[in-house]
Amino acid sequence: PGKKVLIVYAHQEPKSFNGSLLKIAVEELTKQGCSVTVSDLYAMQFEPRATRNDIVGHLHNSEAFNYGVETWEAYKRGGLSKDLVQEQKKVQEADLLIFQFPLFWFSMPAILKGWMDRVLVQGFAYDLSKAYDGGLLQDKLSLFSFTTGGSKEKYAIRGDIRYLLWPMQHGIMHFCGVKVLEPHICYAPEHASEEKRKEMLTAWTQRLKTLWKEEPIDCSPEWYFK
Amino acid sequence: PGKKVLIVYAHQEPKSFNGSLLKIAVEELTKQGCSVTVSDLYAMQFEPRATRNDIVGHLHNSEAFNYGVETWEAYKRGGLSKDLVQEQKKVQEADLLIFQFPLFWFSMPAILKGWMDRVLVQGFAYDLSKAYDGGLLQDKLSLFSFTTGGSKEKYAIRGDIRYLLWPMQHGIMHFCGVKVLEPHICYAPEHASEEKRKEMLTAWTQRLKTLWKEEPIDCSPEWYFK
Repeated sequence: PGKKVLIVYAHQEPKSFNGSLLKIAVEELTKQGCSVTVSDLYAMQFEPRATRNDIVGHLHNSEAFNYGVETWEAYKRGGLSKDLVQEQKKVQEADLLIFQFPLFWFSMPAILKGWMDRVLVQGFAYDLSKAYDGGLLQDKLSLFSFTTGGSKEKYAIRGDIRYLLWPMQHGIMHFCGVKVLEPHICYAPEHASEEKRKEMLTAWTQRLKTLWKEEPIDCSPEWYFK
Repeated sequence: PGKKVLIVYAHQEPKSFNGSLLKIAVEELTKQGCSVTVSDLYAMQFEPRATRNDIVGHLHNSEAFNYGVETWEAYKRGGLSKDLVQEQKKVQEADLLIFQFPLFWFSMPAILKGWMDRVLVQGFAYDLSKAYDGGLLQDKLSLFSFTTGGSKEKYAIRGDIRYLLWPMQHGIMHFCGVKVLEPHICYAPEHASEEKRKEMLTAWTQRLKTLWKEEPIDCSPEWYFK
C-alpha cells in the first residue's frame, strides 16, 4: 500500500500472454493500493540504439564518440535526451521494477536491452566504486517476469534456466544495487492448453498478493550455478 | 584462403578500440585471401526492434500479432523485410561469423541483440526439432570478440567471465548449429596504456593468423560452469 511500481513491458501485442500478465500485475497491484506506472516499450516506440542523439547539445569529446563517457557527462550536466530523463525519473521513484517480456534468445528482446543500455547510465545507476551492494539504486526491488517458447524440460536438458538469469539479474540489477526477487517464469504458454494458461495467470495473481513479504534472492554465483 | 567471413560490428565510432579491432580483422583476413563482409550496424542504422514491419504484406494472424509465428511464416513465403533478407544472405554465405562489440551490461549492445532477434528467425536458423547440433546453420564457425569496461580482475571477483558467454554462445550460436571458437576478450582498453593497447591489437592480429587451425570449444555447461 503506497508503494510505487514501474513495469517495463516489452511485447507488441496487448492480447498476448505477456499482455495478460501485465494486465494482472497492474490490476492486482493497484488493488493493493500501489501506484503503478507502465513503460510499454513497443507502444512508445522506445529507441534501443545507443547513439549521439542521447546527448543534448555539445559533446564532451567530439573527436571520438564514447557512449559511456558522453552519457555520464551529459547526466551530470542535465544533458540527457528527454526520453531517458523520463525513464530515469520513473526508476528513481519506484520501489519495485518489474520487467515483463518474452524470452528472446536466452535474454531480453533488444528493445528492453536498449532500455537497460540507455537508461542505466553511469552517475545515475552506478558510479566509479559504487556498484553491486554499493550501486546507486539502493532500496529498490526488481523482478524478471517472462515467458519462454520452449518447455521447462527443454530448458533443463542443457543446464539450468538460472544460467541465463546471471547477466540480467546479477550483471544489471545487482550491479546497480537493486535487490532481486525470484524470477517469475511461464513456460511455453503458446503450447499450453487453455486450462493450463489460466492456471499460470492465476499463479501470477496469487504470487503478487504476497509479493511484498518475499525476501530477495542471494544474488551470488552460488544461487545461479551452485 | 577462399573462406567467407561476415563481421557483425556494433560500435558507433570508427576511431574506437573496437574500430581498430574491426580494421585489423578486415585487413588480416583479406590478406589471407578471405572474402570479408562487414555489417556495420550503427552506420546502417540497423533496426533492433522486432515489429510488424518485418513482415511484408499480409499477416498470418492479424487478430493477435505473434512475432515468432509471423516471421516464420513470412520466411517460408519469402515475405521478410529486405534488410532481414540481406542479412540472412550474408549469414548463409559465411563460413565464419565474427561479432565485434563492446560488452554492455554483461551482454551485447541492444543493436546487436536486435540483429540476433530479427535475423535468426525460425525456418532460417533453426526449426521444430532442428536445434543445437541439428540447427540449420551447420558448417559455420562463430567468434565473439569484445571489449570490456572493467578489468579482468573485476570480472573475476564475482564469478567467471564465461558465465556471461552462455546465453550468447550457447543460447544463440550453438542453438542454431553454429560452432563456437574461443571468445576474444580485450579487457578495459580505455584504461590501458598506449603500449598495452598496442599489445592487445597485436595479439588479435596474431590470433587471426592461425584462426583457421583452431578447434571449436565444447559448448556444453561444463565449459562455462565446470
